[in-house]
Amino acid sequence: MTKENPIGVFDSGLGGLTVLKQLIKLMPHEDFIYLGDTAGVPYGTRSKETVTKFAFEDANFLLDKKVKCIVIACNTASALAGNALKKKLGVPIFDVITPAIDEARKISKTGKIGVIGTRGTIESGAYKVSYSQSCPLFVPFIEEDEIDTPALKLIAKKYLDPFKKKKIDTLIMGCTHYPIIQNIIESEVDYRVKLIDPGKAAAKQVYEYLKVNSMLNSQNLVGKSTYFVTDFTERFTRMAEIFLGQKLQDKITKVDL
Amino acid sequence: MTKENPIGVFDSGLGGLTVLKQLIKLMPHEDFIYLGDTAGVPYGTRSKETVTKFAFEDANFLLDKKVKCIVIACNTASALAGNALKKKLGVPIFDVITPAIDEARKISKTGKIGVIGTRGTIESGAYKVSYSQSCPLFVPFIEEDEIDTPALKLIAKKYLDPFKKKKIDTLIMGCTHYPIIQNIIESEVDYRVKLIDPGKAAAKQVYEYLKVNSMLNSQNLVGKSTYFVTDFTERFTRMAEIFLGQKLQDKITKVDL
Repeated sequence: MTKENPIGVFDSGLGGLTVLKQLIKLMPHEDFIYLGDTAGVPYGTRSKETVTKFAFEDANFLLDKKVKCIVIACNTASALAGNALKKKLGVPIFDVITPAIDEARKISKTGKIGVIGTRGTIESGAYKVSYSQSCPLFVPFIEEDEIDTPALKLIAKKYLDPFKKKKIDTLIMGCTHYPIIQNIIESEVDYRVKLIDPGKAAAKQVYEYLKVNSMLNSQNLVGKSTYFVTDFTERFTRMAEIFLGQKLQDKITKVDL
Repeated sequence: MTKENPIGVFDSGLGGLTVLKQLIKLMPHEDFIYLGDTAGVPYGTRSKETVTKFAFEDANFLLDKKVKCIVIACNTASALAGNALKKKLGVPIFDVITPAIDEARKISKTGKIGVIGTRGTIESGAYKVSYSQSCPLFVPFIEEDEIDTPALKLIAKKYLDPFKKKKIDTLIMGCTHYPIIQNIIESEVDYRVKLIDPGKAAAKQVYEYLKVNSMLNSQNLVGKSTYFVTDFTERFTRMAEIFLGQKLQDKITKVDL
């Protein structure tokens, strides 16, 4: 393994591209291999057993591609399978949860930190913070491009109102999709509440680790991203570009795991 | 194969239990084996290739259990994989689409028939009727028990308003979940529009076929239903009972396909 090897990133679907976006921003000279398990999505409603099985299949695909490390760009997989992957696999594994908690603790003044996520993430208890709330309908709304509608606002109000009474000062957006509706979330919690994007926090942690361990890619060129999915439909390219916040560099390739 | 063998029923998840409910109602002396592919749910947003692969895995599981026929209790699987299954498998295969169309044509006076379903079902064009509309958020709302809320009404209004102008007189609820929110659907289309539940239509067709071919179970006892899923979480028993409209007769068993 050399420092020129790519960084592997996997997610249950396309939401993890919001994490890839942050990784590219911080490490433009790295090559990335992204795998979205779109035949297995969503992980957020599945059991620990099934999510762990899927996560190992995802990680093994990336290892076959000779990645130098793996970023679990999915909160549910981080919560339910992160420890198992770290124990069993031979490359450094980064999850999105640990860095988000570290960042929230650094920023919070009152220590009253909240987290929102899928049912799987929240029920796992992996985010050890004061207050939590699962928001299971946010992902379907975002995937259906219902991102600025009265119906979404009603749902957001229902999910987020309880945080007002709790007087949190920091809220972790514990699902890769949520940064897409950050403005809706901000408008439903007190405007002074600071929002944490785990993708950003994870990117910083990966960068620091690679730097300290002399594993950063030293190529002068801007790196290349390659995208794989386990199921492909026509809508994916457009959805992927929304999450990534830019045009895809390459076609999406469908693979069987 | 004897007429005492069970009837196999499969769906992408638990929604197909609304079809099982109709089958049991019409054929109380039959034994049923139900498989919900809850590790693969939802089928409605996946490609034809992936849905076909999953549907064959589901059907083969049922064949191993010696079923005398198979009911595809999932509109998306019926639409995308129904023909392939009918060609390749050695037992009678019933889908939920053909009987629903027959029923709608029988009932409609104007021939203006509409259908609502998942994106996969609608885009397949399998329902050859005048007007169609995909309603991708209905399934997540129903699975989250958001079945009588202002947000669902807003979404229903958006999806169903176009049918008013089309002046349809019959609407097929082309997804197993939709009968659960039949009252919301009725309130958003003209009240004179007749709603078709494909589960009911399919149950009638299966009954007629088994009767004509002397394949009805002649046991005097009330039949038994056995439930299998590919992923299990705690919420499933409650959800299953909502779809089935009664207490489960047996525990749900998790299997790997």
